[in-house]
Amino acid sequence: MNTPICRLAGLVTSLLLLQACQPDSAVQTTAESSDSRDTVDLIVNGDYVVTMDSQATVLRDAAVAVNQGLIVAVGPAGEIAGRFKANEILDGKNRVVLPGLINGHSHAAMTLLRGVADDLALMDWLNNYIFPAEVEFVDAEFVRIGTELACWEMIRGGTTTFVDMYYYPDVIAEVVESCGMRAFVSATVIDQRSPDAEGATDSIAKGLEFINRWKGRNSRIMPIFGPHADYTLNAEQLRATREAANDAGVPISIHMAESPFELEYSKQTYGMTTIALFESIGFLDGPTIGAHVVWPTDEEIPILVERKVGVIHNPTSNMKIASGISPVTKMLKAGVRVGLGTDGAASNNDLDMWEEMRLASFLQKVEQMNPEVLSASTVLTMATRGGAEAIGLGAVVGDLVAGRKADLIQVSLDDVHFVPTYDVMSHLVFVADEQDVATVVVDGVVLMRNRQLLTIDTQRVAREARALAARIQATLAERNK
Amino acid sequence: MNTPICRLAGLVTSLLLLQACQPDSAVQTTAESSDSRDTVDLIVNGDYVVTMDSQATVLRDAAVAVNQGLIVAVGPAGEIAGRFKANEILDGKNRVVLPGLINGHSHAAMTLLRGVADDLALMDWLNNYIFPAEVEFVDAEFVRIGTELACWEMIRGGTTTFVDMYYYPDVIAEVVESCGMRAFVSATVIDQRSPDAEGATDSIAKGLEFINRWKGRNSRIMPIFGPHADYTLNAEQLRATREAANDAGVPISIHMAESPFELEYSKQTYGMTTIALFESIGFLDGPTIGAHVVWPTDEEIPILVERKVGVIHNPTSNMKIASGISPVTKMLKAGVRVGLGTDGAASNNDLDMWEEMRLASFLQKVEQMNPEVLSASTVLTMATRGGAEAIGLGAVVGDLVAGRKADLIQVSLDDVHFVPTYDVMSHLVFVADEQDVATVVVDGVVLMRNRQLLTIDTQRVAREARALAARIQATLAERNK
Repeated sequence: MNTPICRLAGLVTSLLLLQACQPDSAVQTTAESSDSRDTVDLIVNGDYVVTMDSQATVLRDAAVAVNQGLIVAVGPAGEIAGRFKANEILDGKNRVVLPGLINGHSHAAMTLLRGVADDLALMDWLNNYIFPAEVEFVDAEFVRIGTELACWEMIRGGTTTFVDMYYYPDVIAEVVESCGMRAFVSATVIDQRSPDAEGATDSIAKGLEFINRWKGRNSRIMPIFGPHADYTLNAEQLRATREAANDAGVPISIHMAESPFELEYSKQTYGMTTIALFESIGFLDGPTIGAHVVWPTDEEIPILVERKVGVIHNPTSNMKIASGISPVTKMLKAGVRVGLGTDGAASNNDLDMWEEMRLASFLQKVEQMNPEVLSASTVLTMATRGGAEAIGLGAVVGDLVAGRKADLIQVSLDDVHFVPTYDVMSHLVFVADEQDVATVVVDGVVLMRNRQLLTIDTQRVAREARALAARIQATLAERNK
Repeated sequence: MNTPICRLAGLVTSLLLLQACQPDSAVQTTAESSDSRDTVDLIVNGDYVVTMDSQATVLRDAAVAVNQGLIVAVGPAGEIAGRFKANEILDGKNRVVLPGLINGHSHAAMTLLRGVADDLALMDWLNNYIFPAEVEFVDAEFVRIGTELACWEMIRGGTTTFVDMYYYPDVIAEVVESCGMRAFVSATVIDQRSPDAEGATDSIAKGLEFINRWKGRNSRIMPIFGPHADYTLNAEQLRATREAANDAGVPISIHMAESPFELEYSKQTYGMTTIALFESIGFLDGPTIGAHVVWPTDEEIPILVERKVGVIHNPTSNMKIASGISPVTKMLKAGVRVGLGTDGAASNNDLDMWEEMRLASFLQKVEQMNPEVLSASTVLTMATRGGAEAIGLGAVVGDLVAGRKADLIQVSLDDVHFVPTYDVMSHLVFVADEQDVATVVVDGVVLMRNRQLLTIDTQRVAREARALAARIQATLAERNK
């Protein structure tokens, strides 16, 4: 307070001037010019920084410095504060900083159908609830509201990247662009009349147009092809989708060996199981994200390794709709890249990656009758760095390392279920809930601060979602009465 | 504002008097005498009241009237407001009212050991972490702090009744008495030197003293016997415990057929499996709560029905420490009374009954490869009315019916994961988290209001728990380095 203006101020007015003298004052400028620290956009502090780097390094009292969307440094909090001054500093008391979670398989807009019907046989559920609701209600507006709702839920739960497959991909991409998340957005290819296309050929053509519109437009948004499955596309259509994807230089995301039904269909139709079929027709000749992979044969697992297929394990969905137990332990041991996903909220019924981590671990432990498999560290890797590698973003996101895109979250340790804390990684996996996530940063931009969403008008979305759901519920009640 | 005092007040002072004139004023008394409604202690409103009665009735815009610790009426909100005036009214906007959850198996004080070691083979976990920590640290103070921590977590998660098994039962009972929960507190009987006894005979004798001290003292606290398991007590000691329990007129809680190890031990030692052994020695001749029951044989299930054994299923613990998958669907079909429990937080790692409901359902669906089994309604019953019946409290708590003890909770539907809401029971089971619970009432007393704990000094408990955990962690690190 030694600037001339402040020294001139009398006793009575000095309190009012205190504030005026601090920001942008002469002193500040002088101080800045003598401050040799680099200015960065953001410093995120934490009692712990769980880097998820290849050594699974956990730092105590540490910080991440972020500038122009990139992580520029990770280290002890004092060291970071000594090297950088920042436009925004997020306090780290009772907080853990870790990479944003990667949801490798979702149908975001279907969040509008969460809980519309449960505990039903698959065909009853599909034919009497999901398909009728989709036929009647899925349009661009449904997809916009549903995807906004899903992004709201994912951001508040600490997910920063997701791989989506649904209709109206332009609408999905627009919502992702506006809410600030990172996503692969699939143009769904399916050989039936769908809400946005007239069959396989039409959906490939429209998909290409979508990809051309979005490729390179926004580095957070990767338009890709999403052929639905081997039982909704024939071999020729699968091949054509792969060719179109390779021509466009984009990956493919597909449902792969999800259920006994699919396994049986493939055997009956092609005389071989799904992954063997894919390999035999050259469908795996390019970057592929395989969702579910519950029923790979022992002969198919090496194919997944060789073709670098990213497998996305969806334990909640696999359990809830009784698809089966994926041999995750065996695939990881063989060297398959395995990430985690929520699937759609219609079969989950939420988009909670914390629950997916827990379930992945628990399910393998009991299925293998071995409590040592799929440790906390392994499943947290699957939800972060491993998931990034599985979807082909290993050089971009997934761990807190200088040079990566700044996609990271703070988890608050304030809740009773974190008392006491022996091993923070164990708590993140076996205890944490979506509601513990305090702050979310994607591409260096804060999307949620102290649990307040900054890029989504949550009240409007909730109102619109509830209004649309009321119409859906009335229609289904009429139909099934 | 027409009392003489108010009419006398001048313009300037009237604002100050406004508040003074409202409560206990002459007007109020006059109004009361012309109000024919009965006064009750509490009315709890909800957009939904999920009664969990035998018809699983769900009421919209309804309320529960509570007086002197009992539910006196359940019905439409308008009707309840017309019949009763209340000393406290809990608002029901965006809230679901349901019975408090019943945690049928816990070791509450072990919450101090949550996450101390995970992902380990059972014997490594027990011999190098749990037993050393217990030998060195478990005393009355450990049990007090650990049980307070557990009660804090259980209340905030909507659990109102629990069945506990640990050492220093007097301390546990004192904590339960002070925090306002309802609990069965077991005097643990084990044939080894334990923190509070010198072996089976000593623990039975001390257990009897504990039971005599607490029986009838507080209707919320039921002292019982907790013989540990068939592999830590011989047949004679098991029989002696049953006799002591029957003499004292109290039930027994015991670990029952939990793991393959236990199954093998029983076969090797007695030439028969655990439940058959229990039946053959008369151990089931009295009220019995069997925790886990992962490995009952087909011949033993009818014994569980006939002896009215209350089975407590602990899916998280069974999965995480790889005990196996309990045949819950089969037991329910046979007529066994099955409730749910969390087990101790050392093998869970929390006390989250919402997760137990979800896991119970998911695990049976995938194990049976049938999405129709263990529906939302079934598992919510297991956590409420069914759990109450399993532990012998079916006439006391578990559903919202006039005459029951007023143990109930409000769940807030404000979180994004409840948007939209089609079927509230589905959302409670497949989506809700501990952190959605807003209000908890036990015996008609509000223990948590708008997420604020009223009967536990949470800051002190957190501080004490963290300090004790730091000592435990240092000791284990020294031992295992």
